[in-house]
Amino acid sequence: MQKKLPLLITTGEPAGIGMDIVLMLAAEGKLQDFARPIWVTADHTALQKRADMLLAAGVLRSCPRWQTVDLGIAADNFLEQMHMSTHDGNAFILLNTPCAQSVVCGQINTRNSAMVAQQLEIAHQLATYKAIAAIITGPLQKSALIDADIRLPDGTMFSGHTEFFMQQSGCDKVVMMLANQAMKVALVTTHLALKDIPAAITTNNVRQTVQIVIDDMQEKFGLMHPRILVCGLNPHAGEGGHLGVEEIEIINPVLREFIAAGVNISEAMPADTLFTPRHLANCDAVIAMYHDQGLPVLKSHGFGDTVNLTLGLPYIRTSVDHGTALDLAGSGGASATSLYQALNMANEMAEKSLTH
Amino acid sequence: MQKKLPLLITTGEPAGIGMDIVLMLAAEGKLQDFARPIWVTADHTALQKRADMLLAAGVLRSCPRWQTVDLGIAADNFLEQMHMSTHDGNAFILLNTPCAQSVVCGQINTRNSAMVAQQLEIAHQLATYKAIAAIITGPLQKSALIDADIRLPDGTMFSGHTEFFMQQSGCDKVVMMLANQAMKVALVTTHLALKDIPAAITTNNVRQTVQIVIDDMQEKFGLMHPRILVCGLNPHAGEGGHLGVEEIEIINPVLREFIAAGVNISEAMPADTLFTPRHLANCDAVIAMYHDQGLPVLKSHGFGDTVNLTLGLPYIRTSVDHGTALDLAGSGGASATSLYQALNMANEMAEKSLTH
Repeated sequence: MQKKLPLLITTGEPAGIGMDIVLMLAAEGKLQDFARPIWVTADHTALQKRADMLLAAGVLRSCPRWQTVDLGIAADNFLEQMHMSTHDGNAFILLNTPCAQSVVCGQINTRNSAMVAQQLEIAHQLATYKAIAAIITGPLQKSALIDADIRLPDGTMFSGHTEFFMQQSGCDKVVMMLANQAMKVALVTTHLALKDIPAAITTNNVRQTVQIVIDDMQEKFGLMHPRILVCGLNPHAGEGGHLGVEEIEIINPVLREFIAAGVNISEAMPADTLFTPRHLANCDAVIAMYHDQGLPVLKSHGFGDTVNLTLGLPYIRTSVDHGTALDLAGSGGASATSLYQALNMANEMAEKSLTH
Repeated sequence: MQKKLPLLITTGEPAGIGMDIVLMLAAEGKLQDFARPIWVTADHTALQKRADMLLAAGVLRSCPRWQTVDLGIAADNFLEQMHMSTHDGNAFILLNTPCAQSVVCGQINTRNSAMVAQQLEIAHQLATYKAIAAIITGPLQKSALIDADIRLPDGTMFSGHTEFFMQQSGCDKVVMMLANQAMKVALVTTHLALKDIPAAITTNNVRQTVQIVIDDMQEKFGLMHPRILVCGLNPHAGEGGHLGVEEIEIINPVLREFIAAGVNISEAMPADTLFTPRHLANCDAVIAMYHDQGLPVLKSHGFGDTVNLTLGLPYIRTSVDHGTALDLAGSGGASATSLYQALNMANEMAEKSLTH
């Protein structure tokens, strides 16, 4: 039987809780739950120091063991070395991404921002090379990367994990999906001021979003005939044009194309009808038109257990649903629940996906 | 001990399920749960016919008894008669509002629309006169009243229960609140196309809404120091201005006025943080900026149990959270849960309110 591909965790901002939550799961033995190798990007020295702090704080009862792998070698040699490495006694394999300066908990140091970007670059390359089954991203501090003038390959300013992976992969559209045990919600628009949303609800955007959701529900969730419900833009889905015309002019014509093609998808539904148990029980994914239409209801049914997914990338990527929590780094006050859920979701997707 | 004031149910559109659900609660003895007289507006003949249908359908095991009171008498005599009437053996007192034409289940007859408006007029007058503790409205068919050219006292077209009571009471602003066991959510704007929402988020509108919520939480819920959480307009509450400026320019300045005056109210919060158990556990009411920000999450936690309240009126008014369901009238297929919850909420408010 072929060895299963690893799950890769990027710990992100070293001054935040990214390393803490990996160590906490490792110490509890929970990284073994997925029957796959776990790879982690972090600075070896900083990780050891963080483990010592958590041990001193009584958060870890024993220090998890890991095998450190130096990345300063040619890619072929690296992968050869990785395939030879084993998990015997080790909770995970550390892909060492050294910091420029020593890490102080809770204190952002922009001299270390290049190392944060390097983690993402490594993750992208390993995923593209199909050396890993999925990327699970820990939290980074966007403003630190911007202050450090970290740029994407095309020269534009760094603006987040998703945009980084999207540009690296040559995608012109990806879809943000949040998922927990209660539901999966994909968004047509994400971080836009409310006044800018209507202009972003275009035929092309709706069509691309729906297509990506269908494709990824098939390819990454193994659901050949996903059942999809779609919210209208306006309250009561526009109430026949009395409360807005985007449903009539833009959204429903696109949805009818998919319905005509045999896709199990609804026309635009009132959001306050859609998100009720009766409808959710018969639905694999919801498409909401904007952030505050879909996410408050999703998170109300499982904050902390919610996982952020990026659909439309050529690989599986999940993310924790929290920030760097700088004030909690090294204290043991962080919760590793979201990371565990992100690993769990990535593993489930890897098991069901057509390509891993 | 003073006799408790009645709860008044308007059955609304006679071709719909309004009468059905009253009869169903009456037959199950559930109208006695509130230890107050129950008054109902409906056409006596139509009500008897509906009861016969539900008996024949096996929905009612026995026909509830009621005492019919003719409204064609002077107000003083009427109230004197009402105070003398008793509930001995009767589930409710029927204030007879005769239809112009005989009622056919499921068939709207605009000749009967004046009778629907008359029910609201009676309810308003009795509430204003403090002869009743609260109004509980059953569903009406707005389009039927418009087709029948029913107008408000100022000559404008009828546009709904809320607008009717608002204009009759001389209020220039009321607040729609939805409530269930999980939460109470008040809205700054209600039935507007998404593109029209930002313009409606004005200093005056936010201030009036907050003031009405505070006043009614005190006067109608007996909470002297209500704890109120407020959503921002934009995702992440504008994220410091990066995702919209309404929080900075409009919403937060108003909220700080209230905070400075000692009110227990938040500044603008991200909606997907606010609607989580941790925050809701310490909150008496949420103020959302618009319909689909607040109602999907509320209804996802209790569709069917949700009650619609109107704050800012000089009396208590609750409403069922469903329509006329014309196709179910007379069949027994209607659910009386929402009416029961609306009665229950009205009763709770009447018990706690400062004036009833």
